Amino acid sequence: MSTTTVQQGRSERFPFELVRPQLEKVEASIRDQVRAFDPAVEPYVSYVCNTSGKRIRPALSVLTGGALGGVEENHLKIGVILELIHMATLVHDDIIDGAVTRRMIPTANAKWGSGLSVLLGDALFSHALHLATEFEDISICRKVGHASREVCQGEIVQTQRRWDLTLTKADYFRIIEMKTGALFAAATGIAAALSGADAETESRMFDYGMKLGTAYQIYDDCLDLVGSEEDVGKTLRTDLEKGKLTLPILNLLESASESQRAKLTKRIVNQEALDLPVLVGIAEYEGAIESAVDTAANMLGTCRDHLVGLPGSEHVEALEQITWFLAALLEKCRR
Amino acid sequence: MSTTTVQQGRSERFPFELVRPQLEKVEASIRDQVRAFDPAVEPYVSYVCNTSGKRIRPALSVLTGGALGGVEENHLKIGVILELIHMATLVHDDIIDGAVTRRMIPTANAKWGSGLSVLLGDALFSHALHLATEFEDISICRKVGHASREVCQGEIVQTQRRWDLTLTKADYFRIIEMKTGALFAAATGIAAALSGADAETESRMFDYGMKLGTAYQIYDDCLDLVGSEEDVGKTLRTDLEKGKLTLPILNLLESASESQRAKLTKRIVNQEALDLPVLVGIAEYEGAIESAVDTAANMLGTCRDHLVGLPGSEHVEALEQITWFLAALLEKCRR
Repeated sequence: MSTTTVQQGRSERFPFELVRPQLEKVEASIRDQVRAFDPAVEPYVSYVCNTSGKRIRPALSVLTGGALGGVEENHLKIGVILELIHMATLVHDDIIDGAVTRRMIPTANAKWGSGLSVLLGDALFSHALHLATEFEDISICRKVGHASREVCQGEIVQTQRRWDLTLTKADYFRIIEMKTGALFAAATGIAAALSGADAETESRMFDYGMKLGTAYQIYDDCLDLVGSEEDVGKTLRTDLEKGKLTLPILNLLESASESQRAKLTKRIVNQEALDLPVLVGIAEYEGAIESAVDTAANMLGTCRDHLVGLPGSEHVEALEQITWFLAALLEKCRR
Repeated sequence: MSTTTVQQGRSERFPFELVRPQLEKVEASIRDQVRAFDPAVEPYVSYVCNTSGKRIRPALSVLTGGALGGVEENHLKIGVILELIHMATLVHDDIIDGAVTRRMIPTANAKWGSGLSVLLGDALFSHALHLATEFEDISICRKVGHASREVCQGEIVQTQRRWDLTLTKADYFRIIEMKTGALFAAATGIAAALSGADAETESRMFDYGMKLGTAYQIYDDCLDLVGSEEDVGKTLRTDLEKGKLTLPILNLLESASESQRAKLTKRIVNQEALDLPVLVGIAEYEGAIESAVDTAANMLGTCRDHLVGLPGSEHVEALEQITWFLAALLEKCRR
């Protein structure tokens, strides 16, 4: 399998060129959803739908469809549904995090306040689940419902365990599997089901999405520490400010000497903001990032293992390239 | 048909005695739902599920089942689902309204802050929609999805049009049909579908619920003006404080003299809180309440018309009694 795309450069654009025409249809369909809303609600939905996300979840559904016999309308549709659920969670996350910028533009709560944003998220979410009921096969609808529930629960557990020093790495992985892995896994797993894949293939594709989503979240958690707001286009350092104990922080706590850990835990217990200079000054910060990057890189290896044995095609190659692309982004966090 | 229950007294308990055993099962099932959540999420869900709501929506589903051939498990199940959706919207409403008390106890946002409450509402909502996917018949799931979307949109339009003097009565009715009518109509309409009712009967039962829900919302809007917090067990006068132009307020604006209207609109345009003494001092306040009560009473008449022609049974009588019970509550607002 070729990995030329990644070798050619470290572009921030995910390697979705192969399915660009289908993703444009997804994009148009997302924009079209505003028509399903009451005219008074349209401008709000429209604002959120027109911001250009990376559309990773729809791309995964489309690529999985292509890898398993051919892309059908239903693969686009499940992509739209999962993206709408994702967008709903972003609107609610931004309220909770008090984030004012996302994808270079003001968040819904910065624009209209948290009250309306709570409702906007609800409307997107209920619309997505309504769309899911349009599939003939109710088992598809069930899988969408299950994934949504996982996402919501993951967000709650994360919020509830802020500043909580008893959080283990196992807890952290469970949280990110729920909050991020679940929708990635739904994208690839449901797409496989829509292609009529056998149970084993569906399960492998589900786990490809789960591991990819988990690795992606680890990347996002590292980026929150080491990224620049200008490059990333959203408010950063919020994890530290809000007491989210992400993998690099957990690594830091683990590798710190007793006196370093005492300093760190004192700050966490007192809910003092943990900013970067503080961390760098206290413990072996770079090693903590390195170790998180290694963990995610291993997961991406598992993703590639899941693809072995699928009939060779450019769609399977693209699914592999995504893992290399993310691996390259992760490498950049090591600097 | 007998109306003895209402004539006997003006108890605040809805006349659901006939289906008390089934409602106890619904109650137990609602409490049981906490087990479907991650252990870390349970305490929050449990807190919300253990507050004693009136369970109007489940009662309507069960009574409709009984009226159309017999109560089945599915009638209880749809009741649980709609009640969970209702509970999710209450959690989010309380955030938006900044309400600190509901059903005599602190609201979720008063207890845990709005961040966690946003997520708690999401979790309840996604769980309810997940439960809906367990019906064999996907059309039931679709109806639940449709109702949820209506509720969310109704809430948005209401929020968006606060302090908006261009709001017409038609706008108001559309808002309350979406935000309250939709779930009542789902309770009776879906219950009829589950009983295998013909399309005309399903449509009549749907409209029974729609009109009952709309009348109930008008009652709630009057109560916000004339009720006592002690009796009602929740924060009142929030509509006025938040600029919600409810039917009595719209009546007041309509019946006011030009100078009275000028005073009222000035306050609204400046987003000054419209408290009760202000209203009483400005215009013909009692007439505005009276007229709203009349409107709701007419809707309850339509509800009764929809029941005519159903085979006589104690369940049909109970559905009629509910309309008389609500009519009696409405009458109390006239004082």
